[in-house]
Amino acid sequence: MDRLLYGVAYYDEYMPYDRLDKDVAMMKAAGINVVRIAESTWSTLEPQEGKFDFSHVDRVLDAMHKGGIRVIIGTPTYAVPTWLVRKYPEVLAITNRGPNQYGPRQNMDISNPDYRRHSEAVIRALLGHVKNHPAIIGYQVDNETKAYGTAGPAVQKLFVQYMQKKFSSLDALNKAYGLDYWSNRINSWEDFPSMVGTINASLGSEYSRFQRQLVTDFLAWQAGIVREYKKPDQFITQNFDLGWRGHSFGIQPDVDHFAAAKSLDVAGIDIYHPSQDQLTGTEIAFGGDVTRGMKGGQNYLVLETEAQGFPQWLPYPGQLRLQAFSHLASGANMVEYWHWSSIHNSAETYWKGVLSHDLQPNTIYEETKTIGRDFQRLSPQLLSLKKTNKVAILFSNEALTAEGWFANGLDYNQVLRSFYDPLYRHNVGCDMVDPSSPDLGKYSLVIVPMLYAAPASLLARLEQYVQAGGHLLVTYRSGFSDENVQVRTTPQPGGLSKVCGVTYDQFTAPDKVGLQGDTYQAKATDNQVTTWMELLTPTTAQVLARYEHPVWGKYAAITENQYGKGLATYVGCHTSDAVVDKLVTSAVKKAGLWGADQELAFPLITRAGVNQRKKNVHYYFNYSATPGAVRYPHGAGKELLAGASVAKGQSLQLAPWGMQIVEEQ
Amino acid sequence: MDRLLYGVAYYDEYMPYDRLDKDVAMMKAAGINVVRIAESTWSTLEPQEGKFDFSHVDRVLDAMHKGGIRVIIGTPTYAVPTWLVRKYPEVLAITNRGPNQYGPRQNMDISNPDYRRHSEAVIRALLGHVKNHPAIIGYQVDNETKAYGTAGPAVQKLFVQYMQKKFSSLDALNKAYGLDYWSNRINSWEDFPSMVGTINASLGSEYSRFQRQLVTDFLAWQAGIVREYKKPDQFITQNFDLGWRGHSFGIQPDVDHFAAAKSLDVAGIDIYHPSQDQLTGTEIAFGGDVTRGMKGGQNYLVLETEAQGFPQWLPYPGQLRLQAFSHLASGANMVEYWHWSSIHNSAETYWKGVLSHDLQPNTIYEETKTIGRDFQRLSPQLLSLKKTNKVAILFSNEALTAEGWFANGLDYNQVLRSFYDPLYRHNVGCDMVDPSSPDLGKYSLVIVPMLYAAPASLLARLEQYVQAGGHLLVTYRSGFSDENVQVRTTPQPGGLSKVCGVTYDQFTAPDKVGLQGDTYQAKATDNQVTTWMELLTPTTAQVLARYEHPVWGKYAAITENQYGKGLATYVGCHTSDAVVDKLVTSAVKKAGLWGADQELAFPLITRAGVNQRKKNVHYYFNYSATPGAVRYPHGAGKELLAGASVAKGQSLQLAPWGMQIVEEQ
Amino acid sequence: MDRLLYGVAYYDEYMPYDRLDKDVAMMKAAGINVVRIAESTWSTLEPQEGKFDFSHVDRVLDAMHKGGIRVIIGTPTYAVPTWLVRKYPEVLAITNRGPNQYGPRQNMDISNPDYRRHSEAVIRALLGHVKNHPAIIGYQVDNETKAYGTAGPAVQKLFVQYMQKKFSSLDALNKAYGLDYWSNRINSWEDFPSMVGTINASLGSEYSRFQRQLVTDFLAWQAGIVREYKKPDQFITQNFDLGWRGHSFGIQPDVDHFAAAKSLDVAGIDIYHPSQDQLTGTEIAFGGDVTRGMKGGQNYLVLETEAQGFPQWLPYPGQLRLQAFSHLASGANMVEYWHWSSIHNSAETYWKGVLSHDLQPNTIYEETKTIGRDFQRLSPQLLSLKKTNKVAILFSNEALTAEGWFANGLDYNQVLRSFYDPLYRHNVGCDMVDPSSPDLGKYSLVIVPMLYAAPASLLARLEQYVQAGGHLLVTYRSGFSDENVQVRTTPQPGGLSKVCGVTYDQFTAPDKVGLQGDTYQAKATDNQVTTWMELLTPTTAQVLARYEHPVWGKYAAITENQYGKGLATYVGCHTSDAVVDKLVTSAVKKAGLWGADQELAFPLITRAGVNQRKKNVHYYFNYSATPGAVRYPHGAGKELLAGASVAKGQSLQLAPWGMQIVEEQ
Repeated sequence: MDRLLYGVAYYDEYMPYDRLDKDVAMMKAAGINVVRIAESTWSTLEPQEGKFDFSHVDRVLDAMHKGGIRVIIGTPTYAVPTWLVRKYPEVLAITNRGPNQYGPRQNMDISNPDYRRHSEAVIRALLGHVKNHPAIIGYQVDNETKAYGTAGPAVQKLFVQYMQKKFSSLDALNKAYGLDYWSNRINSWEDFPSMVGTINASLGSEYSRFQRQLVTDFLAWQAGIVREYKKPDQFITQNFDLGWRGHSFGIQPDVDHFAAAKSLDVAGIDIYHPSQDQLTGTEIAFGGDVTRGMKGGQNYLVLETEAQGFPQWLPYPGQLRLQAFSHLASGANMVEYWHWSSIHNSAETYWKGVLSHDLQPNTIYEETKTIGRDFQRLSPQLLSLKKTNKVAILFSNEALTAEGWFANGLDYNQVLRSFYDPLYRHNVGCDMVDPSSPDLGKYSLVIVPMLYAAPASLLARLEQYVQAGGHLLVTYRSGFSDENVQVRTTPQPGGLSKVCGVTYDQFTAPDKVGLQGDTYQAKATDNQVTTWMELLTPTTAQVLARYEHPVWGKYAAITENQYGKGLATYVGCHTSDAVVDKLVTSAVKKAGLWGADQELAFPLITRAGVNQRKKNVHYYFNYSATPGAVRYPHGAGKELLAGASVAKGQSLQLAPWGMQIVEEQ
Repeated sequence: MDRLLYGVAYYDEYMPYDRLDKDVAMMKAAGINVVRIAESTWSTLEPQEGKFDFSHVDRVLDAMHKGGIRVIIGTPTYAVPTWLVRKYPEVLAITNRGPNQYGPRQNMDISNPDYRRHSEAVIRALLGHVKNHPAIIGYQVDNETKAYGTAGPAVQKLFVQYMQKKFSSLDALNKAYGLDYWSNRINSWEDFPSMVGTINASLGSEYSRFQRQLVTDFLAWQAGIVREYKKPDQFITQNFDLGWRGHSFGIQPDVDHFAAAKSLDVAGIDIYHPSQDQLTGTEIAFGGDVTRGMKGGQNYLVLETEAQGFPQWLPYPGQLRLQAFSHLASGANMVEYWHWSSIHNSAETYWKGVLSHDLQPNTIYEETKTIGRDFQRLSPQLLSLKKTNKVAILFSNEALTAEGWFANGLDYNQVLRSFYDPLYRHNVGCDMVDPSSPDLGKYSLVIVPMLYAAPASLLARLEQYVQAGGHLLVTYRSGFSDENVQVRTTPQPGGLSKVCGVTYDQFTAPDKVGLQGDTYQAKATDNQVTTWMELLTPTTAQVLARYEHPVWGKYAAITENQYGKGLATYVGCHTSDAVVDKLVTSAVKKAGLWGADQELAFPLITRAGVNQRKKNVHYYFNYSATPGAVRYPHGAGKELLAGASVAKGQSLQLAPWGMQIVEEQ
Repeated sequence: MDRLLYGVAYYDEYMPYDRLDKDVAMMKAAGINVVRIAESTWSTLEPQEGKFDFSHVDRVLDAMHKGGIRVIIGTPTYAVPTWLVRKYPEVLAITNRGPNQYGPRQNMDISNPDYRRHSEAVIRALLGHVKNHPAIIGYQVDNETKAYGTAGPAVQKLFVQYMQKKFSSLDALNKAYGLDYWSNRINSWEDFPSMVGTINASLGSEYSRFQRQLVTDFLAWQAGIVREYKKPDQFITQNFDLGWRGHSFGIQPDVDHFAAAKSLDVAGIDIYHPSQDQLTGTEIAFGGDVTRGMKGGQNYLVLETEAQGFPQWLPYPGQLRLQAFSHLASGANMVEYWHWSSIHNSAETYWKGVLSHDLQPNTIYEETKTIGRDFQRLSPQLLSLKKTNKVAILFSNEALTAEGWFANGLDYNQVLRSFYDPLYRHNVGCDMVDPSSPDLGKYSLVIVPMLYAAPASLLARLEQYVQAGGHLLVTYRSGFSDENVQVRTTPQPGGLSKVCGVTYDQFTAPDKVGLQGDTYQAKATDNQVTTWMELLTPTTAQVLARYEHPVWGKYAAITENQYGKGLATYVGCHTSDAVVDKLVTSAVKKAGLWGADQELAFPLITRAGVNQRKKNVHYYFNYSATPGAVRYPHGAGKELLAGASVAKGQSLQLAPWGMQIVEEQ
């Protein structure tokens, strides 16, 4: 990557009239230097089986190239054409809600042989046709790929084969998954029942893992095809997305991001977030931390984010700019809007682009011009920011899926975010790691929310991490069951009991339960235990808080244990976000990570890294409508937007939704 | 129509024991002079395929005739017999929820050939049998007919044929509907996918229009059959119904009433409304205004309304009477209860008739006696009231359907009612018109709520209306997309921008937004903008209200534009009913329509018209439990109920839920 | 039964490792003297069609026998093995939601011939194998059996045969069920439509009755097979369950308990109830009263109840003990936990057993030891308590089902419980009777909630009961329709009008309606009429309360009628629990049943009976966290737990969640 990329998704196919030259001219004026095309356009690329029409692609490639704008080609496979479904109806997935209908995207069975064969054909035809075009800098394989709940008979067969590989015998399977329960025992492979109705959490979680594996395999397969065509200086990426709660919110349950990214050259993501008074930058940071982790800390591409988005996401003046630089501050090398112009028909008419439906310059477009200009001007200083963080959060799709079978009112991503958000609010840089991440030892603090299902080896790694001097902050429900979602028969927290110095065998749903003694200086309304509590008995741990309750008051709620050279904090109950904030900041301090940046707090956000020139770069963002000021605590440098020198201790003024960027000398 | 009709639906078939002579005697005592029979009784009329039994019909016809009670014969086709479904299972519609089950009414595919063939057979058999009976004054074809969501393969074929007629080429279709999006492009007619899963609003809205066309065609087909049998002095009608929200509420989304009524002689409707403290008369007026419009201002029949209705609709003393005359005041020539007596089994046991389940005289029956007596006595003065209104509301099923695909929290009928109800509350007579209505020029004020989808020609008509001196009050979202639900690429409000003197390209969901300056003297809690706001910039318009908000405050919310000889008011945001009330009354005043009747307001309601003797008739209703008084502002006349003379300026006393009726000299 | 049984369900099949000897030792230490095994374990008993493996059963039988623990063998038929479904897919029921999936228990069609044939085979194989084992004291047939909504074509055929037997002709059927309505008339048996879509309440209620009959027949069929194998001193039981509302709550709508229990030797039940601060003992008493009634007042078995249960049901110290003795106080001879140890996989991982997942002694286990010891020690005094109650509540599944078709916001079980709970709170012993119960005359007070559908003969029995001196307390909606759910055409309350001295023909949903004059000394917020009110006119009755409402105030709400030698109280409206409490206590007093025990009230509960030694036994329970005291009002006796003598009038101290048990001399 030789410069910051500022881009849009562009669909010549969807335009109500020929706009191409006009659009290129407007893009250039805004500093847009890359477009993504072709994704989801199978029905125009291959109007009938085997008959191809690349006219839209060709004219866009030529016009962009002429305009000096680079192109990412997306394979079109995430929405299937009408003829494919008519000829091969089994292309549509059968899920636990029955057979899918034609109409929506992402309705296919990604393991279906006809879908695969025709996907390959259209990819090969497209890439064979465009591969020598000089405008192309990279390829995106499919889009937001998932298994979409595919569970029909053909997929079921694949699953049985997968299980036959995994388990040496049915006896082993029956034992590991507890299938004797309610007569679910499988005594012959041919008896293996459909997963659609299973009530066995072990089997159901395994099926989710298998579906995630389908995604990993599918992307590797597509990337393999693309790799035959791409040039050495072109990249392959995918547009991953996050767990959704009206906007990007948490870990994506349906994809193992770290595994799936292995077949790609560079990680890509879409990040959509609240706006106006609800804009906090948290999802930008969170999504960035997840995506940076996909390829071991490499810089990444934001392949989609909102320009205007839904009606409620129309940004205030300045917000679009604040957002764009926030992505860079997390390590992004590209910010690309979905999409250039608003669509005039169909499902996403109100998911607006940079341009409104009248396709004229508007307030948003005017703001993109300032961003494009600064991206171009500051590429040398802002490209490929490297970040070194001392805190990590360990997440796990295995844990997320398994916990969902027994949620008891808890939500994995909500709990994870309740621990992530304080880090963001206090300007503590964070890496997201998963069980496949090799090196925990480089972190001073590792936070582990609800690691509900995990192999003993992972728990042993956490113990060794503390033994060697790390600080572990681990929550309720962790260690409870093994990788087969079988509850451990050893004392709870299973496999973590020793390192945490605590044990329990009972838990309950709190009813008028608080925390004794206000350890965390919380308001009475915050100092509450809700949804889940474990009745902890310390063995070697010290008690940080006990329950406030006539009966449960004798049990510990939160404990801390010196173990080896390290410290393990165990949080045995779900409590308020305010208390969790205090828990996290306390852990950060104990880990020796409370520095100058932590004296600031949301809405004043600072994020930092080292640029290609090996200089420290400090971003200062004001996520509020009120002017703010920051005393700059680092070495003397230059504020890049205005070009002024900045001395250590100098006050930096931050306009509403404003920012400053300092490169140290 | 030679007299006011006062009637009941009557089902000899459902009676637990032989009651016919007793019922006729009780009806006569109550002044009931018409019954509707046979509707929904296919299984008794034709117990087996081709075997007919008209004994119930014959005995009721004879008994009624003997009692001097007239009869409307309903064709029985809206509920299918068991044998039909057993022999021809495809008679049951397949909808987007799967195949229908036997049991409910209205579960059939009205385009199914077997259903049509057997419908025709039973209609011909019935009408051939009864056609010479002297009791019959008219026929009702089917009942509350709709397409019931029919969407199976056979209907899909019809739809494709319909589309082939509509569009010269698939290219034109793909372009107009934006089918390239998400690869939905149709490149061959044989690829045309089922509409069950479509996510394309243009296609989906077209399918809704096609389903409404099925209804129009079906009724025309039935009316054609009936017309072969009926005598010249007999009428054909249908029992239409309104959009439902626990009671009759708004426009019927599934039927194009004005188109469907073309094949009928007289319009019919059912109107069900809240009662007790919730009785306001609004639905009686609204339903009347809609139904009067079906045949260009002709009088109409209320074919069904509640006597006792659901438990919560048991009327207070006086309310049944108030309701009956309110129907007449809207132009009804018949008030008919569904139904004579409460049903002892099945689904509608608690939708009670005039008689309770004990079939004895009760308080309701006693009240019908007073109504029947007055209907008979006052027929010369009250029959065939003609109404001339200077205000119209333009509604559109195309707009309603299309808006529903992108509702963003708004509901077409709720918005329409929020503009209708102030007219009712302030005694402003109103016509309901639709895009097929020929002559807007006769109105001083035309109100257009959420005309989300409309052809350019309709928008041009609105512009011409203002040009020529009309006052247009038009709301947010109007003009936004064309008749194919393609968003216009011209400035918004598309096609209305010039006449309204305003433009916008952005809109958002308001979050703590009000209206500046309290233009409408509303309480702070009412002076709020909710759900939807457009960021208006006036071109030639004057600003009536701006938004109260730190960022959006620079945009206009409501504007007014002198254009040609007229005035166009544009409402760019959803606000409270209280503010809409002020907006509407302000528009009425500007249109010069604020007169003596408008000095009254709900709960004191006055409605007027001209009777067959060319005299003005003024109804005064008290829709409250508190006595009221009205100063009579019109020419001297006679109060018809008590027979007293009334002078201009005289005070009329209105008892709780009471009324007076004055015929001017 | 020669001793109190204290037991657990035990599943060697589900154990993560071999625990049998350890478990037996721990059970013995806790005084556990019975286990239930084999229920739901078909897939381990018969791993492939016709291949049996009794190893789990054998080793458990032997180990238990060696440990002196008795065994109840459950037939395994309530969860089907994978091979059965693969070979005979029609074993899975088709319901109105479509075909069932494999996975859950209770997904089969209990009338399916293949299911029946294989059920019989596995039962015969199992019983043939174990029948001589000395550990066995009884058999449980199936578990919580219901028809599970089975409604596929095969079952439909059975239903038509059932209807052919019930009705001499289709004319009679059409008339009784009002099938002419909406053309549902059946003119030929072959036209009989599937019940899946019926909208006819009479037909739908009959289908529910037919489904309950399937359960009765199925259990009789299984009991018949078991009876061929069992020894004379072994019993046959079933584990019935109650209507569920997050816990055991009301009458079981899907089983006619009294009819189904006829084929059993002893009645069994599972009772699950709230815990911690929500523990009241009401469900223990209610479930006990229902179960005691199944076999005409015989003692019964609690085959399942919670040890720890769901997380929210973890009991406080003392509660497990309080619960156990509360079961005995209702007439139980066995208290058995579901289950011994928490399950490590699948759906019920969080429905915990006595042991937590670590299978170690815990606080619950320690408390079982005290219970087991006392059960053993006090068996002679506490076994087979006989109870003689003077109050009965008449419930009816016919009424419950029919009322559900026309609920109008009311819920049968909630209304029933609102009348039951005051009896419990005021220590008034109660029998639950149903329409098959022969002798109402032995009761001083019979309470009849919402007897919505009933044959005339039952209403006549109620009239005769009052005539002969009984006190009848009967509520709104009673008598309304006949056994075919046809509304009576006689004055309402149909068939009860004369005995109650009251009549009505109208009812409505109350809107701001109260009770005049505060007859029941209720708070203003309690003195309200909600959901349902009948407009009562007394004929011979006295008015106890009128409605407080401007219009309805002239009607009576609650009345009382001297009739013959008795008294009939009619409650014409749904009101608050507080007012119902007063209504019930007033009725108890009028019936002459207010005695010393009624001076106590919840949370201090007393329950009594006569033991095998013909001594009166009085239980005193404190259902609260606050210490309580009771003045003992009965004859001198001995407190059994501590062994102290107790004099009449002496004060008994009750610890929080504590109890005392006095045996009179």
